[in-house]
Amino acid sequence: MPAPAPLAHVGVVGLGLVGGSVARAVRRVWPAATVTGLDQPDVIETARRADAITRGVADLADLDGADLVVLATPVPGILAHLEAAARAGFSSLLTDVGSVKRTVVETAAARGVRRFVGGHPMAGDTRTGFAASRADLFAGRPWFVTAPPGAAGPAGEDDARAVDALARALGAEPVRMAADAHDRLVAYLSHLPQLVSVAVMTAATEACGVEALGLSGSGFADVTRLAASDGDLWSGILTANHDYVEEAARAVAAVLGRLGAARAQAPLVAAFLEANDARRRLDAATEARPDAARETTP
Amino acid sequence: MPAPAPLAHVGVVGLGLVGGSVARAVRRVWPAATVTGLDQPDVIETARRADAITRGVADLADLDGADLVVLATPVPGILAHLEAAARAGFSSLLTDVGSVKRTVVETAAARGVRRFVGGHPMAGDTRTGFAASRADLFAGRPWFVTAPPGAAGPAGEDDARAVDALARALGAEPVRMAADAHDRLVAYLSHLPQLVSVAVMTAATEACGVEALGLSGSGFADVTRLAASDGDLWSGILTANHDYVEEAARAVAAVLGRLGAARAQAPLVAAFLEANDARRRLDAATEARPDAARETTP
Repeated sequence: MPAPAPLAHVGVVGLGLVGGSVARAVRRVWPAATVTGLDQPDVIETARRADAITRGVADLADLDGADLVVLATPVPGILAHLEAAARAGFSSLLTDVGSVKRTVVETAAARGVRRFVGGHPMAGDTRTGFAASRADLFAGRPWFVTAPPGAAGPAGEDDARAVDALARALGAEPVRMAADAHDRLVAYLSHLPQLVSVAVMTAATEACGVEALGLSGSGFADVTRLAASDGDLWSGILTANHDYVEEAARAVAAVLGRLGAARAQAPLVAAFLEANDARRRLDAATEARPDAARETTP
Repeated sequence: MPAPAPLAHVGVVGLGLVGGSVARAVRRVWPAATVTGLDQPDVIETARRADAITRGVADLADLDGADLVVLATPVPGILAHLEAAARAGFSSLLTDVGSVKRTVVETAAARGVRRFVGGHPMAGDTRTGFAASRADLFAGRPWFVTAPPGAAGPAGEDDARAVDALARALGAEPVRMAADAHDRLVAYLSHLPQLVSVAVMTAATEACGVEALGLSGSGFADVTRLAASDGDLWSGILTANHDYVEEAARAVAAVLGRLGAARAQAPLVAAFLEANDARRRLDAATEARPDAARETTP
């Protein structure tokens, strides 16, 4: 039996991996709801044929009146849409799925967007675009929800709850977090793995030549899987969060310097023991999720 | 039809993940061959019940007369066995599966081991011990073969070819490489991923607390999978190869420092593009292997 539809009309701006998956998931859980997409005409056409949206529009103003509009473009596009929404006096509730929250929440506040709550589902793929989207992308994943500091009143809290409800309906677990705490956390948990993956690939290729990489094993493959990620997308995220990304990169470089210089086994054994313990706890937390199987099929 | 058995008697010293897998694989491809294992009595008993060995012995001297003896203990044990073999005037051909080759080859030469060829199959698992061993561990994997510098004569070359033949019979691809080149290569391709995985786990846990790790996604899981590895085993490998490990750790720390400090997108986009290309080539090389499916099931 489909879940009830507290949102009768959802707008999605940008039908890529995340936006396309939001649209598909809303269609699945609330088949009676209207799902309006905004993207290039060919993407709209593809999404309509895939039944991911019920109709397409070409302008943000056409989405005013929806119960919730999800901005799912890369971060620069999110900022541009927030500015456009403020200029147009857009009255519907807006949320986003951007990987950084400070710049998004600050822009919404500074421009005077009427109703905005930041969001960030911790779900992704090295592939991008509508073709990679799927309705179960968010199943069992955390979905950060960042209410703007000025929105502490009852109306603001209602808006934040609406975004919580969307996340939960799509199978995710809403996690309330302030923008600054969010950005520092994802610098370590999400942005750092990207940077490390690229750095290992860069260093190994420079030192050994790309041909020799074929002699590597599954460990190298794991650590460098994110080196397949989209550079345009990630360079935008990494520069938007550059202070915390730099902190995290320096922290790892410092540990690498300390462990790499070790001549005795004791400090290495100690570091492995602590990392073993953290990994065990991570595995336990991951296995507790309803979608544990997904972890191995990125 | 089973392959012919050029080796009628194979000895395996240390029936852990790699030694146990060597024994199982020899039993599978050469069912008529004698496979003698040397380990603790309980491990011998388990291996015999699993039909991984045909008999067990308690002393290296009991293996003299075998066509090939594989030293499959951690590196300190390999060095100790080589010293014992030299003292006893051991006459059978010895090889090893150690992750570093300089110290092993140098010890064999310095102690005057009669017949020795270094080896290193690039196959592993974060789990260790006989329980994790399997006959197909080496399928499609590179197996480095390091003939000692002094063994260039016809007899030495025959010995190296015998190790090539073992690797090929077990499904691996023998790759001849001098000890120094091997140790530098594996510092980047194998030891560095271990160190980076532990370093990311350490830095993230210190900065965010272990509870927050449960909010991470599949990227963090990939990059930190090797943080589950055995610290006793790996601290021995890392310190035995400390000069090249330190070089590799510094190289990655330098790239991390440069990319982490980037305020503009251009240098990041360039780094991702090069890493994307290297990752595509690595995927192509991996997919060309007969066991491509194994890469995702470590």
